[in-house]
Amino acid sequence: MANERFERGWAKLMEVDGEGGQRVIDSLQDIAPDLGSYIVEFVFGEIYPRQGLDLKQRQLVTIASLATQGGCEPQLHVHINAALNVGLTPKEVIEAITHCVPYAGFPRALNAIFVAKRVFAERNVQVAN
Amino acid sequence: MANERFERGWAKLMEVDGEGGQRVIDSLQDIAPDLGSYIVEFVFGEIYPRQGLDLKQRQLVTIASLATQGGCEPQLHVHINAALNVGLTPKEVIEAITHCVPYAGFPRALNAIFVAKRVFAERNVQVAN
Amino acid sequence: MANERFERGWAKLMEVDGEGGQRVIDSLQDIAPDLGSYIVEFVFGEIYPRQGLDLKQRQLVTIASLATQGGCEPQLHVHINAALNVGLTPKEVIEAITHCVPYAGFPRALNAIFVAKRVFAERNVQVAN
Amino acid sequence: MANERFERGWAKLMEVDGEGGQRVIDSLQDIAPDLGSYIVEFVFGEIYPRQGLDLKQRQLVTIASLATQGGCEPQLHVHINAALNVGLTPKEVIEAITHCVPYAGFPRALNAIFVAKRVFAERNVQVAN
Amino acid sequence: MANERFERGWAKLMEVDGEGGQRVIDSLQDIAPDLGSYIVEFVFGEIYPRQGLDLKQRQLVTIASLATQGGCEPQLHVHINAALNVGLTPKEVIEAITHCVPYAGFPRALNAIFVAKRVFAERNVQVAN
Amino acid sequence: MANERFERGWAKLMEVDGEGGQRVIDSLQDIAPDLGSYIVEFVFGEIYPRQGLDLKQRQLVTIASLATQGGCEPQLHVHINAALNVGLTPKEVIEAITHCVPYAGFPRALNAIFVAKRVFAERNVQVAN
Repeated sequence: MANERFERGWAKLMEVDGEGGQRVIDSLQDIAPDLGSYIVEFVFGEIYPRQGLDLKQRQLVTIASLATQGGCEPQLHVHINAALNVGLTPKEVIEAITHCVPYAGFPRALNAIFVAKRVFAERNVQVAN
Repeated sequence: MANERFERGWAKLMEVDGEGGQRVIDSLQDIAPDLGSYIVEFVFGEIYPRQGLDLKQRQLVTIASLATQGGCEPQLHVHINAALNVGLTPKEVIEAITHCVPYAGFPRALNAIFVAKRVFAERNVQVAN
Repeated sequence: MANERFERGWAKLMEVDGEGGQRVIDSLQDIAPDLGSYIVEFVFGEIYPRQGLDLKQRQLVTIASLATQGGCEPQLHVHINAALNVGLTPKEVIEAITHCVPYAGFPRALNAIFVAKRVFAERNVQVAN
Repeated sequence: MANERFERGWAKLMEVDGEGGQRVIDSLQDIAPDLGSYIVEFVFGEIYPRQGLDLKQRQLVTIASLATQGGCEPQLHVHINAALNVGLTPKEVIEAITHCVPYAGFPRALNAIFVAKRVFAERNVQVAN
Repeated sequence: MANERFERGWAKLMEVDGEGGQRVIDSLQDIAPDLGSYIVEFVFGEIYPRQGLDLKQRQLVTIASLATQGGCEPQLHVHINAALNVGLTPKEVIEAITHCVPYAGFPRALNAIFVAKRVFAERNVQVAN
Repeated sequence: MANERFERGWAKLMEVDGEGGQRVIDSLQDIAPDLGSYIVEFVFGEIYPRQGLDLKQRQLVTIASLATQGGCEPQLHVHINAALNVGLTPKEVIEAITHCVPYAGFPRALNAIFVAKRVFAERNVQVAN
């Protein structure tokens, strides 16, 4: 059963985060492997597969939460990639961050925008107008 | 033109926040009326009418940002009402807050859930399973 | 197996948080019962039973984390009670909060101290000098 | 010498915070009296008497810091009173909070404005235009 | 009229932030140009030209807000430069950050001090004693 | 007397933070030397020598507070070293950070874990299972 949660979580992690997620789990192996397991089993095995919001909606929520807390640039890098992986457009990612301006202020939004800029460059995608 | 921005913003504020938004603007009149104008003109006159995300997506982002920062219970009260006003279901609101758990932790999510509980009771709506 | 995690978590929740924890889980039943299940299964079924730190050490960490983020007064109320339940003395609770002053500033520490003051009054305990 | 720091700090606390500051120190006596001593000796005995910024400038900084962190409404209540005590006008207090909007977002600013509104009502002062 | 706001904002941005501000606006052109427009029109066209606080007071507030939230080192770099541009002395900048210690804690203050150290080195200015 | 506080603080700083602490104080000499004095006299001369919690407990609290706020990677680097200096094991450090997951979320915990990973590599220590 623990295996079932892990397997469901791993499949979801691959679907959403792809390589970026695998790198995080791998980098935890020699220091805090259980933390990696919780990410697979709890975050991707229990939270992400829930009904009620689809993966595009979940990535909007994820990006808003990460942009708002600040100091989460590595996680934003993973999850802006994830947003594109599940079908959000670059423009929708930019819109979600822009929408955080009135709530979290310009500095938080700017920091997130510059992570998006780097992700889009790495993937060679552009923001259509 | 300032009038045009104000009018567009006021119409959008009424569509999204309704009475709860009006109460905030009214309560600022004798202390910081310009802050009320910025909410109308900038937040609802410029940010909310943007293309690229619809109002339901914007309210998912808003709720995630407010739940994540913490200490924004009054604003969550307005914007969980707003979420329902623009067509999100109670279940979708609960899902958005639940999805913040791995990113912002349980305490932030719990505080937001209990605001949602109050809003749903006030509006006499229930979370369908 | 899911049952095993729930049962282990519930026993741990009762040991640590007692009534205060049960009230939180109960209050989630009609709005977000799964959030209650995650608290039982993940937080108390997986994190709290881990090796390496005992329950007194875990409550020091919990109080420091909650006091530092701010806006977690309801959770501090539960976990300052929990700290006393697992054997920390009132003086140790006060010391942990005082130790956060240089890191999180006086306002966060003061807000936590006043929650402790309320908990100690409710339990009729005093800080020995 | 410790006495000298305490006395200098107490005099400064009375000058800046007045009654509101005394109430905080008093409320700590039976729970964490040393925390009160640190506020007197370190905050008001060492930081506030420093050269380089006058008390009005220091209260602008204090209000910006407290408004930005959020969840510091009790401390904002003390320090908006303190701002008026040292000669800032109600309008300058409102301006300082309004200036935080682009950096900390509207919710943090609104929460601080409503504390100012309460302080001004209690002191029966008005914001001149 | 929108042009008037933009022009007033651009002139103020140049006066306050100078080159550092222009670089931020430029870097947004290919990714989120509207975010740049909001910084010009709303932040520098509406907030900064307000009556009630002069530019030196506004930069004290800005530095306190950015230092307190943390994770805003790029923005602190721009705004510590801006503080010197509008006439604050290096000593006043250091004092403003030092004054945040009791409210935001030592780590936030240290991070901001080290940004100031870099800015002062780049501008070849020193903190007079 | 000020000397007595400074000397007690310096001895404690050396005991707890060692070289890492000295580097912070040194780096402040030409920019904000008083901030260094406050760290020595107040943080290490008054807070750390207090009764009620031993140094291992204090470092658990420190790590939890720093990991939770985010954006404190330089301070975490100093204090994870300090944790090992005063006798916490690498495993206890990892446990303390892992215990913050439910309260502060995964991103804050991951950022802290990767600082620990770097510290352990620099000291050539490993996490025993």
